[in-house]
Amino acid sequence: MSIQLQSISGAPLSHTTHIRAHEFVADGSIQEGGADSGPSWHDPYDAALGACKALTVLWCARKKGLPVQDLQTVVERDASTERAGTYRMVTRLQVSGELTDAHFGELQAVAHKCPVHKLMTSVNTEIETLVERTA
Amino acid sequence: MSIQLQSISGAPLSHTTHIRAHEFVADGSIQEGGADSGPSWHDPYDAALGACKALTVLWCARKKGLPVQDLQTVVERDASTERAGTYRMVTRLQVSGELTDAHFGELQAVAHKCPVHKLMTSVNTEIETLVERTA
Repeated sequence: MSIQLQSISGAPLSHTTHIRAHEFVADGSIQEGGADSGPSWHDPYDAALGACKALTVLWCARKKGLPVQDLQTVVERDASTERAGTYRMVTRLQVSGELTDAHFGELQAVAHKCPVHKLMTSVNTEIETLVERTA
Repeated sequence: MSIQLQSISGAPLSHTTHIRAHEFVADGSIQEGGADSGPSWHDPYDAALGACKALTVLWCARKKGLPVQDLQTVVERDASTERAGTYRMVTRLQVSGELTDAHFGELQAVAHKCPVHKLMTSVNTEIETLVERTA
């Protein structure tokens, strides 16, 4: 699986981002020197956590036949100590539907241990970077 | 800064994702039980790395007046050992423009130490998760 980004000619920072058949623009905010035409540097990182928790809860509900009606998820970031070595996020999920306490407990459990939560907190990410000149 | 996700009624997994004034759909792939109507669980994580490297290179070029003409960035993931504790990504940036060796070296350096690279490899991410029932 690969993701491709292409700089947009004439724009200060923005890029078209291709993920399979999907596309979105990544850009810096005005304060960062961009035009705020899309999510910025940290945004997709935080969004990955929210999306994984939300999709994992619905995936679990569907697999177990639990009647989740609606799910709202909010991710709040606190990057104030990032440079000192700690980046914090609070994720709040609000779920509605006719759920027993046992079923709600199951959804709580999977929300806490979704794959991206584990990736961000207990898996080592190794990155290789290659920079090349083209004509 | 907060990110909001709202489940889409009637769809198996998909959510509308709001980041400031920007919006995209997050969804599982067909294999994951979704409808592949948008990026999936890990995609925004990988995209965050590519976007940060790409935007950081253009930001640096602009700040220093370096004539970068075009920038293409590809992120390849290897999740084969994720469950064993290691997630790997290779990022390849291809830059064009009339750049001296010294200028190219500066761009290489910032591509290697962009903020999200550091976040993923040397910053601790701490996550709090709250799950609530609503009517």
